[in-house]
Amino acid sequence: MAKKKKRLRKRRRRRNTHGPVGAPPGSLTVQEDAQPTRASVIAYDESEITEHVVEKLDDVGGALERWRVTWLDVVGLADLDTVRGTGRLFDLHPLALEDVVHPHQRAKVEDYPSGVFLVLRMPSVDDDDGLELEQVSVFFGESYVVTFQEHEGDCFEPIRNRLRQRRGRLRKNGADYLAYALLDAVIDAYFPAVEAYGERLEDLEDRILEDPREKHVSELHAVKRDLAGIRRAVWPLREAVNLMLRDENPLLTADTRLYLRDAYDHTIQLVELVESHREIASGLLDVYLSSVSNRMNEVMKVLTIIATIFIPLSFVAGLYGMNFDPQASPYNMPELGWRYGYPAALGVMLSIALGMLWFFRRKRWL
Amino acid sequence: MAKKKKRLRKRRRRRNTHGPVGAPPGSLTVQEDAQPTRASVIAYDESEITEHVVEKLDDVGGALERWRVTWLDVVGLADLDTVRGTGRLFDLHPLALEDVVHPHQRAKVEDYPSGVFLVLRMPSVDDDDGLELEQVSVFFGESYVVTFQEHEGDCFEPIRNRLRQRRGRLRKNGADYLAYALLDAVIDAYFPAVEAYGERLEDLEDRILEDPREKHVSELHAVKRDLAGIRRAVWPLREAVNLMLRDENPLLTADTRLYLRDAYDHTIQLVELVESHREIASGLLDVYLSSVSNRMNEVMKVLTIIATIFIPLSFVAGLYGMNFDPQASPYNMPELGWRYGYPAALGVMLSIALGMLWFFRRKRWL
Amino acid sequence: MAKKKKRLRKRRRRRNTHGPVGAPPGSLTVQEDAQPTRASVIAYDESEITEHVVEKLDDVGGALERWRVTWLDVVGLADLDTVRGTGRLFDLHPLALEDVVHPHQRAKVEDYPSGVFLVLRMPSVDDDDGLELEQVSVFFGESYVVTFQEHEGDCFEPIRNRLRQRRGRLRKNGADYLAYALLDAVIDAYFPAVEAYGERLEDLEDRILEDPREKHVSELHAVKRDLAGIRRAVWPLREAVNLMLRDENPLLTADTRLYLRDAYDHTIQLVELVESHREIASGLLDVYLSSVSNRMNEVMKVLTIIATIFIPLSFVAGLYGMNFDPQASPYNMPELGWRYGYPAALGVMLSIALGMLWFFRRKRWL
Amino acid sequence: MAKKKKRLRKRRRRRNTHGPVGAPPGSLTVQEDAQPTRASVIAYDESEITEHVVEKLDDVGGALERWRVTWLDVVGLADLDTVRGTGRLFDLHPLALEDVVHPHQRAKVEDYPSGVFLVLRMPSVDDDDGLELEQVSVFFGESYVVTFQEHEGDCFEPIRNRLRQRRGRLRKNGADYLAYALLDAVIDAYFPAVEAYGERLEDLEDRILEDPREKHVSELHAVKRDLAGIRRAVWPLREAVNLMLRDENPLLTADTRLYLRDAYDHTIQLVELVESHREIASGLLDVYLSSVSNRMNEVMKVLTIIATIFIPLSFVAGLYGMNFDPQASPYNMPELGWRYGYPAALGVMLSIALGMLWFFRRKRWL
Amino acid sequence: MAKKKKRLRKRRRRRNTHGPVGAPPGSLTVQEDAQPTRASVIAYDESEITEHVVEKLDDVGGALERWRVTWLDVVGLADLDTVRGTGRLFDLHPLALEDVVHPHQRAKVEDYPSGVFLVLRMPSVDDDDGLELEQVSVFFGESYVVTFQEHEGDCFEPIRNRLRQRRGRLRKNGADYLAYALLDAVIDAYFPAVEAYGERLEDLEDRILEDPREKHVSELHAVKRDLAGIRRAVWPLREAVNLMLRDENPLLTADTRLYLRDAYDHTIQLVELVESHREIASGLLDVYLSSVSNRMNEVMKVLTIIATIFIPLSFVAGLYGMNFDPQASPYNMPELGWRYGYPAALGVMLSIALGMLWFFRRKRWL
Repeated sequence: MAKKKKRLRKRRRRRNTHGPVGAPPGSLTVQEDAQPTRASVIAYDESEITEHVVEKLDDVGGALERWRVTWLDVVGLADLDTVRGTGRLFDLHPLALEDVVHPHQRAKVEDYPSGVFLVLRMPSVDDDDGLELEQVSVFFGESYVVTFQEHEGDCFEPIRNRLRQRRGRLRKNGADYLAYALLDAVIDAYFPAVEAYGERLEDLEDRILEDPREKHVSELHAVKRDLAGIRRAVWPLREAVNLMLRDENPLLTADTRLYLRDAYDHTIQLVELVESHREIASGLLDVYLSSVSNRMNEVMKVLTIIATIFIPLSFVAGLYGMNFDPQASPYNMPELGWRYGYPAALGVMLSIALGMLWFFRRKRWL
Repeated sequence: MAKKKKRLRKRRRRRNTHGPVGAPPGSLTVQEDAQPTRASVIAYDESEITEHVVEKLDDVGGALERWRVTWLDVVGLADLDTVRGTGRLFDLHPLALEDVVHPHQRAKVEDYPSGVFLVLRMPSVDDDDGLELEQVSVFFGESYVVTFQEHEGDCFEPIRNRLRQRRGRLRKNGADYLAYALLDAVIDAYFPAVEAYGERLEDLEDRILEDPREKHVSELHAVKRDLAGIRRAVWPLREAVNLMLRDENPLLTADTRLYLRDAYDHTIQLVELVESHREIASGLLDVYLSSVSNRMNEVMKVLTIIATIFIPLSFVAGLYGMNFDPQASPYNMPELGWRYGYPAALGVMLSIALGMLWFFRRKRWL
Repeated sequence: MAKKKKRLRKRRRRRNTHGPVGAPPGSLTVQEDAQPTRASVIAYDESEITEHVVEKLDDVGGALERWRVTWLDVVGLADLDTVRGTGRLFDLHPLALEDVVHPHQRAKVEDYPSGVFLVLRMPSVDDDDGLELEQVSVFFGESYVVTFQEHEGDCFEPIRNRLRQRRGRLRKNGADYLAYALLDAVIDAYFPAVEAYGERLEDLEDRILEDPREKHVSELHAVKRDLAGIRRAVWPLREAVNLMLRDENPLLTADTRLYLRDAYDHTIQLVELVESHREIASGLLDVYLSSVSNRMNEVMKVLTIIATIFIPLSFVAGLYGMNFDPQASPYNMPELGWRYGYPAALGVMLSIALGMLWFFRRKRWL
Repeated sequence: MAKKKKRLRKRRRRRNTHGPVGAPPGSLTVQEDAQPTRASVIAYDESEITEHVVEKLDDVGGALERWRVTWLDVVGLADLDTVRGTGRLFDLHPLALEDVVHPHQRAKVEDYPSGVFLVLRMPSVDDDDGLELEQVSVFFGESYVVTFQEHEGDCFEPIRNRLRQRRGRLRKNGADYLAYALLDAVIDAYFPAVEAYGERLEDLEDRILEDPREKHVSELHAVKRDLAGIRRAVWPLREAVNLMLRDENPLLTADTRLYLRDAYDHTIQLVELVESHREIASGLLDVYLSSVSNRMNEVMKVLTIIATIFIPLSFVAGLYGMNFDPQASPYNMPELGWRYGYPAALGVMLSIALGMLWFFRRKRWL
Repeated sequence: MAKKKKRLRKRRRRRNTHGPVGAPPGSLTVQEDAQPTRASVIAYDESEITEHVVEKLDDVGGALERWRVTWLDVVGLADLDTVRGTGRLFDLHPLALEDVVHPHQRAKVEDYPSGVFLVLRMPSVDDDDGLELEQVSVFFGESYVVTFQEHEGDCFEPIRNRLRQRRGRLRKNGADYLAYALLDAVIDAYFPAVEAYGERLEDLEDRILEDPREKHVSELHAVKRDLAGIRRAVWPLREAVNLMLRDENPLLTADTRLYLRDAYDHTIQLVELVESHREIASGLLDVYLSSVSNRMNEVMKVLTIIATIFIPLSFVAGLYGMNFDPQASPYNMPELGWRYGYPAALGVMLSIALGMLWFFRRKRWL
């Protein structure tokens, strides 16, 4: 109970997607749970690559001129000076920076004169807290990509490795292709998360079919709510990729556009997967309800049958338990003195019981 | 009960969004609950600012020429002369003025030759009456902003302070930016209101899971109805901001447009927040229903089990309560005279009870 | 019952929105319930006005030339010659005339070479029959407005008065403004009708919360059906006004267009009001259902508790009502001869009852 | 049962809307239930008309040149040679001819270089089989209309009569107007069919309100399914007419377009009528369900009340039926020997019964 | 149970529609269940045709130049070298090849500079596993068609036969017509699959109406889930065909476009068929639920009636089973000593029973 409450509290706190009410737009404030900031840079061209932690932001300016593509990765949003400095260095718009430091935005893509601003939500499944959606903000221009992450830990390690290994298309292409690769990595990271819910649903189905219990309903509702959360994260992502695809932004080469079309395809598959899981969850709720009502009906049927068989029998027994005085009148319960009175009474009871059973059988209630 | 009725009455009365039936369009009438009118002016340019209560409307004309931006704020709509005078001074269209004095309009934006007319609904949560949505009408042109409010008390104080402090972008930008800032303040004011409903829902969820009662249903319905009301207020707001954004109105500078895009983003988040709360409320109703039916099933199961165990036992007891005369015939209830008749009867009863219990246990009804 | 049937019959008969099956398009036939025809004319320019009943249609031709705007109002559709004559006089299209005499069309606007044709449905609430929607057909051109109504009685009297009093914009504007004013009057007439349903819903809510009965359901269904009917009338009206607004018809001046935008706003409010009432009605149905099932649960709980308490007690009583012969054997019900046998039995019963009550209390069933 | 099954079988068989799987597109095959073919021709201009059965297709070629409009009506699709010959004569596309001989297509309109191809579904209500939708394929060009029907019997007789009588617009207009007239006749033929379902629904409502039975549910489901079928037929018809209306095909004169707009209006009314019937049917299902559950509740309430009144009474009776021996001890049921013991017991019972009744009355269960 | 689980596992595994998470886009990996690869070629022009298994891919290059149309059919995706070689030979895009070897994509059509890429899902009903949807990837250009299939066995045999027989349009047309023919064959293959579900639904309806059981619900849910799966396969197919139709791709001749329009028609029919089956399935669920609750009501009614008749009778019997001592007082159960006491008691019981029956009959509960 308490844990659930805590989770809900957390979820609610997260909704604070902009600065304090009344603050001027574009003003940056540190979020309660912001992590310490650490920045690192990977810069490369087709033949060479360099990678180091950033100590002074001014050094990055040099890299920008020296290398074909410079990727500045800022993790943790507690140090607003670094954020502001990065903003100045790459000429990022204050409103975009506001979205960076007030996370939990919807996924979106926005064109600014100085480049493209992407907000993504990177999923990571955590055993305790369920699905976490960390905001990743991506800016890219002609020769740079800047990413802001909330926490350490991301799904970009394979991309870094591909960069280091000088294999594949990454090193041959520009900043737009790197930005695409990051976007693609985020999209791909959703699949295992969504499939984990698929497995939970299968597991739930097995358990519900075996023995439907109320806790399954709350579990189903939790899964449905989480899936609704993923859906709210995935739909805007799909829209954003589509917008990027249709947009005539010259920063994107025709070749990258083909890859982006592929990423768009993946977002559609993702949306369909989520929708199909939601349908399965709804179907399971129906299965549960019909199981429970079926079980209830079975219980009631047994009650009915036992009760309706014994109620007339008890009546007959009660009848011959009456104390009318046979001595006072020959009409007073003469059966009590008959030779075969008791066997006859037992016989009547047996006939009633058998008749009832035959009636129930004919009605297919048994 | 009575209070609820009163609330409904009030709600209904508010629906009167235009003049009396049959009145010519554009005619102004005082609403029943109109407040006394008070007008004040804030005028500023980048270097200076003045602020005073308006006593004669003609003085405002001078301010218009002297200052870069003049903001006339009219609070209370009882004095139609002031409204009409303001209309003449700023060349406001009669239809727009009609919307000003007959509040409870949907949020909207309309272009008139003399400027842009915005209708907003400013939320304020009141402990007794639930959510209040006060209409704020905003006109703006090249160098002026005129606002009409129904009551004292608004969410614009932070903006006034920012103006006075000569900090930030407000003093450097024109009337369009001030209008944007007012719009943004109204949008921001919705978030705490909607989040309050989120907290009520969490609270309700805790209480329903603990002990589902009928009053929770009516409370849920009240929350759903209020959320539907907010939704009806927020959707047109979103549309209006979108329309303003896409519109080619030259009064809006490119820079203000960027900020407006941000405001549009906030309205989308607001709509999603409301929708997600509505979904949670619907989910809670399902949880409640399945809780109640579950509890009912548990009750019925206990009845079934107790009844089905005791009904056959009572039958056996009734059987041996029959008064067939053992003296009249050796076939008449000879068991009554057996040495171990009573213990045997008790044993039969015990066997029946245990058999039943075993049967129920096997069926997983216990 | 019979009355309901009659109402349904009537409703069905009204669906006959075109001539007999197989009749050529554009052929006019008198409807069963057509009223006798009466035509009157109001003609005016800014300085003068004339108003009289039409005896010969040819006289109207003269008015057309003399006055700036001529409004011919034909009430009752029994006299097809008048309708045909009017059609010839104003060059109205046969298909439009067919729609005039076969009422119960959807609201619509159609451009014909000779002018604009509007079909409106004017609401009037009647205590016996519920909502009546009378068809009003409006034609207007450069200098004329022709209206056809089914019955006497309309919502245009305030417009006539404004015309007579030479006040406001009506006398200064052309035929398009008069047509707008008629349209606006029809739209305004819906509000009290819809609000009457709002009051019925409030009343129903009070009664359902107090004591839910089945008749409330049929009343709710009747309200929902009527609201669905209004919705079917109002949606096309909204579409028609929107079409008129977006259409480039030169008959509408820019000024009238501003007023039409206002009318369009009102239709949107109307649609929202109807939708919100429909939602409230659906919500009430849920409230009713949960009330009823709650009440049922309460009844069942009482049965369960009384039955489960007394069934074991009755069993004990039945047990000691058995007639095993204590004389025949010391094992046969020796309790019957114990000094405190009866008080002990009563004590056992009391313990069972109290134990049960404690159990129910612990389970929160009491 | 068997009949229902048969009906379903038939319905399924009809779904075969194209040639055998694997057949090349455009190949014609005779359907199982194809009727023998009979062709007739009506050819006319404004002054003259001729009408005869076609014996050799070549004769039709002469008519085409002689008359302004030639209408070839082919009834029955068993003779593929006639269909192919007609196709050659009028230059009809093989894919269109395939649609002609494999009926049960959706309504549609298709432009081919040689003319316009319309697929319509003509309704006819049959007492045994419910609604039949016969496919009518219409081709028209500059001077000809070709129709293919599945069976004898159609709704075109009034058109033939209007042609013969040289009245109205038909004789004065071209082939496009004739095609419109046929389309209009088909649309008009839906109204009585749909209204018949309206009457069945009214009848069902009366019967459900009087005495809700399970068979009403299956009847309701049958009506809903049929209405869904009509809806599936009518929606594409509406789309097709709309497409025709918006299309710039030069075969349609401006005048015919006005009439087509009228026909489009009728299809909208049709769609609304069907939707409104579907809503009524859904509403009736709710009414049925709430009636049934209400009746069930009433039954349960009676059980509860009778049971809860008599169970305690029976317990009291059972109590004094115990055989504790008053002689053995003064504590053993001394009541049995009291002077007013029996009347007192009866009094206790009566008090319990009255108390219960008062309790139920207070709870409003009675 | 176990089988069901297995089926679910399989379904989940299939969702893996792209390479391992983190792999660069366009990288090919062999799927677990990939079949050995076999390639064959059919090449033809109007007069001649050749058909052989491919041993070296280079030979295909020769065919490409010699014949008007070359169809390379690759079955089984285990041999990535063949796939890559084919890609090089026909200049297929790496992203498209990735989609080829990671099957279970949505149906789609994509334009690449070198030709058109179609992803189709070919249905085949298998008795054990239900519906299988095998992915067929089709590339076509000016003079070639390349198809990739997952398994042996397809629905293209009739097309091969039509090619061999030099009949019909296939041999006379280009590669675009062959691609259309393959697409059409896949679409046609859905119809028997969907109709099989129609038959299962009919069968289920018969069984539910006869004797509703819980297993029918799970069967219905299985059918609904499968239909939802088909729907998810068919909707994108419809979209893809529509996109191809509207697209201005010069590879498609005007003539093929007419045939494609026909194929599009078939996809619409398919979608409608699936939707209509889904509606029928939902309707059946309602029928089942109302059947079950009806049956339950019937059971409860019998319980009610038997119980309510016998409970008062048993009370009367219990009353006269009390042991008040008639000797102790004249008020103690004098009835027991009356001459007609017993018959009178029986008479009272009979009257109660008959009164109850009359009451139930009047209430129409019997």
